[in-house]
Amino acid sequence: MQKSRSDTPALKVSFLGGVGEIGKNMTALEFAGDILVIDCGSSFPNVDMPGVDLVIPDVSYLIANKDRVRGIVLTHGHEDHIGALPYVLKDLNVPVYGTKITLALVEAKLREQKVENTNLNIVKPGSTVQFGCFKVEFVNVSHSIAGSCALAITTPAGVVFHTGDFKVDYTPIDGNVIDLQRIAEIGNRGVLLLLAESTNIERVGSSISESTVGASFNNIFADNTERRIFIATFASNIHRLQQIIDLAVRYKRKVAFCGRSMINVAQAAARIGELRYSEDMIVDIDKIKNVPDKELVIITTGSQGEPMSALTRMASDEMAKVKLGYNDTVIISASPIPGNERMVYNVINNLYRHGCRVIYESLAEVHVSGHAYQEELKLIHSLIKPKFFMPVHGEHRHQKKHAELAMKMGMPSSCIIVPDVGNQALVKKRSISLGDNVPAGMLLVDGLGVGDVGSSVLRDRKHLAEEGLFIIVIGLDRKSGEVTSVDLVSRGFVYAEDAEELLENAKQVVLRASGKMDLKQLEDFTVYKSVVRKEVKSFLFKETRRSPMILPIITES
Amino acid sequence: MQKSRSDTPALKVSFLGGVGEIGKNMTALEFAGDILVIDCGSSFPNVDMPGVDLVIPDVSYLIANKDRVRGIVLTHGHEDHIGALPYVLKDLNVPVYGTKITLALVEAKLREQKVENTNLNIVKPGSTVQFGCFKVEFVNVSHSIAGSCALAITTPAGVVFHTGDFKVDYTPIDGNVIDLQRIAEIGNRGVLLLLAESTNIERVGSSISESTVGASFNNIFADNTERRIFIATFASNIHRLQQIIDLAVRYKRKVAFCGRSMINVAQAAARIGELRYSEDMIVDIDKIKNVPDKELVIITTGSQGEPMSALTRMASDEMAKVKLGYNDTVIISASPIPGNERMVYNVINNLYRHGCRVIYESLAEVHVSGHAYQEELKLIHSLIKPKFFMPVHGEHRHQKKHAELAMKMGMPSSCIIVPDVGNQALVKKRSISLGDNVPAGMLLVDGLGVGDVGSSVLRDRKHLAEEGLFIIVIGLDRKSGEVTSVDLVSRGFVYAEDAEELLENAKQVVLRASGKMDLKQLEDFTVYKSVVRKEVKSFLFKETRRSPMILPIITES
Repeated sequence: MQKSRSDTPALKVSFLGGVGEIGKNMTALEFAGDILVIDCGSSFPNVDMPGVDLVIPDVSYLIANKDRVRGIVLTHGHEDHIGALPYVLKDLNVPVYGTKITLALVEAKLREQKVENTNLNIVKPGSTVQFGCFKVEFVNVSHSIAGSCALAITTPAGVVFHTGDFKVDYTPIDGNVIDLQRIAEIGNRGVLLLLAESTNIERVGSSISESTVGASFNNIFADNTERRIFIATFASNIHRLQQIIDLAVRYKRKVAFCGRSMINVAQAAARIGELRYSEDMIVDIDKIKNVPDKELVIITTGSQGEPMSALTRMASDEMAKVKLGYNDTVIISASPIPGNERMVYNVINNLYRHGCRVIYESLAEVHVSGHAYQEELKLIHSLIKPKFFMPVHGEHRHQKKHAELAMKMGMPSSCIIVPDVGNQALVKKRSISLGDNVPAGMLLVDGLGVGDVGSSVLRDRKHLAEEGLFIIVIGLDRKSGEVTSVDLVSRGFVYAEDAEELLENAKQVVLRASGKMDLKQLEDFTVYKSVVRKEVKSFLFKETRRSPMILPIITES
Repeated sequence: MQKSRSDTPALKVSFLGGVGEIGKNMTALEFAGDILVIDCGSSFPNVDMPGVDLVIPDVSYLIANKDRVRGIVLTHGHEDHIGALPYVLKDLNVPVYGTKITLALVEAKLREQKVENTNLNIVKPGSTVQFGCFKVEFVNVSHSIAGSCALAITTPAGVVFHTGDFKVDYTPIDGNVIDLQRIAEIGNRGVLLLLAESTNIERVGSSISESTVGASFNNIFADNTERRIFIATFASNIHRLQQIIDLAVRYKRKVAFCGRSMINVAQAAARIGELRYSEDMIVDIDKIKNVPDKELVIITTGSQGEPMSALTRMASDEMAKVKLGYNDTVIISASPIPGNERMVYNVINNLYRHGCRVIYESLAEVHVSGHAYQEELKLIHSLIKPKFFMPVHGEHRHQKKHAELAMKMGMPSSCIIVPDVGNQALVKKRSISLGDNVPAGMLLVDGLGVGDVGSSVLRDRKHLAEEGLFIIVIGLDRKSGEVTSVDLVSRGFVYAEDAEELLENAKQVVLRASGKMDLKQLEDFTVYKSVVRKEVKSFLFKETRRSPMILPIITES
C-alpha cells in the first residue's frame, strides 16, 4: 500500500507565548520525535493586569512533550526573549544555547532567582548545533543588543530561516556587519519557510545606523562642556553604552552607572569583554558629589519612565544621592514603547521643572531603532527567497502589513500564514496550513505565584480599582433568627467620614432586607447574601451612581 | 502723599484647572472689582484615577469671589473648554458667552445633566462684549472645531491677547480664514500680555490645512467603490463631517452616524446650520442592513479606541447592529492622544482580525492637527508683539519650549512666565511676576459625586487593584476573651479554591496572634486589629510576596 502524500510528516511550528506580539516570546519547531524551542521570553503586563509583575508563556504543551524537547536556542538577550527562562527551566531543564553576552545576561537572571544546575552552552555566530533532527546555524545580525543572531535551521522538511530581531547596520559599533553573504548563500540553497520580524513594517526606507547616535552624543558633549550630563537608555544596549564611555574618555569625564539593571548589565558585559572601560574612569553613583559637574556623565535606567526606575525617581526628587538642577543636561536616548508615552512625558515634564536641559526628540537623533524598516525586510525576502512565509514579532496589524509586503514582492497569498498565539502551522514540502491549536498563551507572575492570578482575580482587581469595596458584616443569632449587628466597612468607594448618612441609610436597607426573610429557616446563607447584596447595590447606585464590590459576610452568634 | 508704583492695581491672571495641561480648562482674569473667566472645561482622568469619570477645575477661588465674577467666555466647544459647565454653573450661575456652535454643544450638555435657568449668549466672531472693566473681542481663528475664537481683552492695565486653541488654515472648509488682519491691528495698537497655546510647539514648520483631509478621503472613496466605508473621527470636528458628507453626495453613498456623541453633535450642528445635508441621505444605524455596502459610509466615534465607543465595540464584535467583514474599509481619521496609543492599536488589530482594510497612518493624510506648529506660533508672536508672554495649553515641557521660542524671537526672559496650575500672575504696565498661589486644581467626578473621591480613596483603589483584598472576620466573645470564629474572605488576591492550605495557615496565624493578647482587657479593638494585620501581612508576604489590603473586622458575640 502506497502512503498518500498527506501522511508525510509535517514540520510543525507552534506559537506559544506573547502579550500582543506574536511569536516573540517563544516558538517551537517540531518534526516527528524532536522539538526545538526558539527563545523563552517574558512580557510586561498590560494595563488590564494590575499588580502583575511579569507575563510568561504557557509551556504546558512542552511539558506534555517533555521527552522530545531537545533544547532552547536564544536569538538574543532581550527580556522578551530570555525573561521566562528562570520559570521554564524549573520544569523543563533542557540545554540552552546562545551567544556569550546573551548567556551572561541569562546567568545573572538565573542567579537572581536561584535557579541552579542549568545547562548553558555558548555558541559563536557562524557555528552550528544539532538538536535531534534539527541543525541550527547561528547567523550574525545587528540589533539593539550585542550578540544577536538569526537562525538557519535545517529540518527534514527543508530549511527554516528565522530572522530573530534584526536590522541591517552597515557601520555597527563592534564592526561585525550582518552576514548578508551567508544569508544569500542560505537563500540560494533553498529555504522552505521564512519567519521574519515585523516590528517596523510601518516605517518606509531603512533604519539608521547605531553609529549616528554616537555622532549626536558627540555634538551634545561638545555643546555642554560645563554641564553635568545624564543619558537614559536601555541597559542592554551595550553598543550604546560603549559609545558613551568612548565619548567620556574623549571629553575627560568620569562615568557613573545608575539603576540596578544598568549596573548589573555593565558589569556582566565588562566581565566577558563586550564592554570595554578602565576601572579608574568609573565612579560609584553614591560618590558623584565628589566629581565636578563638567567631569561627569551618568548613564541611567528609566528611559521608559518606569515608575521605580532611577531617572523617574530622580525626576520626582525621590533619590537622595542624585539631585537635579539647572546645570544638568538629560538625554533620553530611547523612544517610548507604545503604552509608555504618558509615563515618559511625565518624567520629561518633571526634569524641566528642575530646570534641566532635556534632549529627547527623535529629530535630535539621540536614539535609533534596532528593528528593520521596509527596505531592509525586502532585502531579506529577496536574499532568502522562501517558499513559505510567516510574519512574526509584531502585533497583528504589523503581521498583516508584512504579509502584504511579501505579496507585493510576488509571493502568492496561499504561501503565507499570519499566525496567532496558540496556532500550530503544518509545513510540508509543497504546502503550508494551520493545524489544530495547541495549549498556549499567558501565565501571569505575581510575587511568588506563577499562574495563580487568572482572569477572575484580575476581574476582581479591576472592579475594586474602579468602584471600590463595600463590606457588610451581619451578626446573626441563628436560634432566634435575629440580626444582632450590622457593620459596614468601605474602601476606595467614598470618603467614609463624609458619608455618615449614606452608611446609616445603607444599614437600614440591610435591616429591612433581613426583616423580610425568615432567617431561622435558612439552610445556607447564599440566598440571604444575594438578597442583601442586591438591595444594597441598588441603593448605593441610586445614591451615588457607583457600583462598588459588595461583600456580605454573615457571622453567627 | 504720593502713591508708589507698587500700589497700582495689577491685572491678575489665575490658572485654575487642568490635568497635565496648564491653563486649558480654566483661566481667570481679575482687575480690581471684576473677574472674567475664560473657558470652563473638563479633563479625562489619567491612569492614576481608576473609576473616575471626569476631572473638573476646583473653582473655590471663584466661589469665594462670587460677587465679582462677571461671566464666562468660551473660546470653543471642545470638552476641555466647556465640559465643566454643568457642574460649575450649579454654584456660579453667571452669563456665558460663546459662538453659536459652541453654545449649541453647551446646551446639549446642560440638557443632559438637567441644569436649567442658565444665561447663554451667542456672540459672533468680530463682536465685542463688556464684562465690568473688561472689553472682550472675539477674533475668528481656525481649529479642529468650527466656531473657534481667540480673545482680545482690553483691561485697565492694557490689552491681553489669548489665542485659545488655534491653527492658521488658509483654506478652511467654511471659508472663514483666521483674521490675521485684525490680529495685526490689535498687535499694532500694543498688547500687554500674550497667552498663546503650546500644544504643537515641538513640530517644525506649519500645520496642514483641513482641506487636504478631504482630498485624501476622495482618493480613498475612489479606490474603494465596491466596499463599505467607515470613518472614525472626533464628533466635534464638524468641518471634517461636512467633507465626508460632501463626498458621500459625490459618490452616491448614504451616511449613517454611529455613536451617541456623533449623533448628538451632528444633530446639534445641523439644527443651527453649521452642518449641511439633506435628510434623505441619512440612514439610521439600525437600518444599514438595507443599504448595499457600496452605497454606505458610516461616520463613527471611537477614533481614540475608547472602551465604550462605537468603533471599539464593533471591533470586538459587541455591537449587534454592525458586523465587520472583508468588504469593509475603516479609516481612523485621528491621531492617538498621548496615553491612548495602546487602546487605538488594540482596535486596529481587531479590525484587521475581522479582515477589514484599515487606513490609519499619518502618511495617508487622513488626519491633520488643529493646533499651530512652530511657524504659525512665530507668526502670532510677530503680529501681536506683546510686552509680556505666558505660554499656556500644553504640558510643562511644551510651555518651556514655547518660552524658548519667544526668547529666540528676541523677548527677554524677564518678560516671560511659565505658569503652573494654581499660579496667579500679577501683570502691570512695566512688570510681570507671580503672586501668591490661589486655590486651584482638580475635582474628581465619579458617578453623582463631585470631589468626594480624593487621594485616600484613590490610594485604596490602587492598592486593591494591584494587590487585592484579604478580609479577616473575627468573632470574639467579649466576656471570656475567646475567639469564637475566624472567617477569611479574599478578592483579587489568589484564586481561593487553589489556596486552601494558605487560608488555613493564615487562620492559625490569626489564632496565634489572638492567643498572645488578653482580649478580655481590650478597651477598643485598634491595637488588636493592628497586631492581627501585621502578623497576617508578614505571613502572606512571606508565602506569596504579595501585600493585599488586609481588613480585620471584629464582631462581638
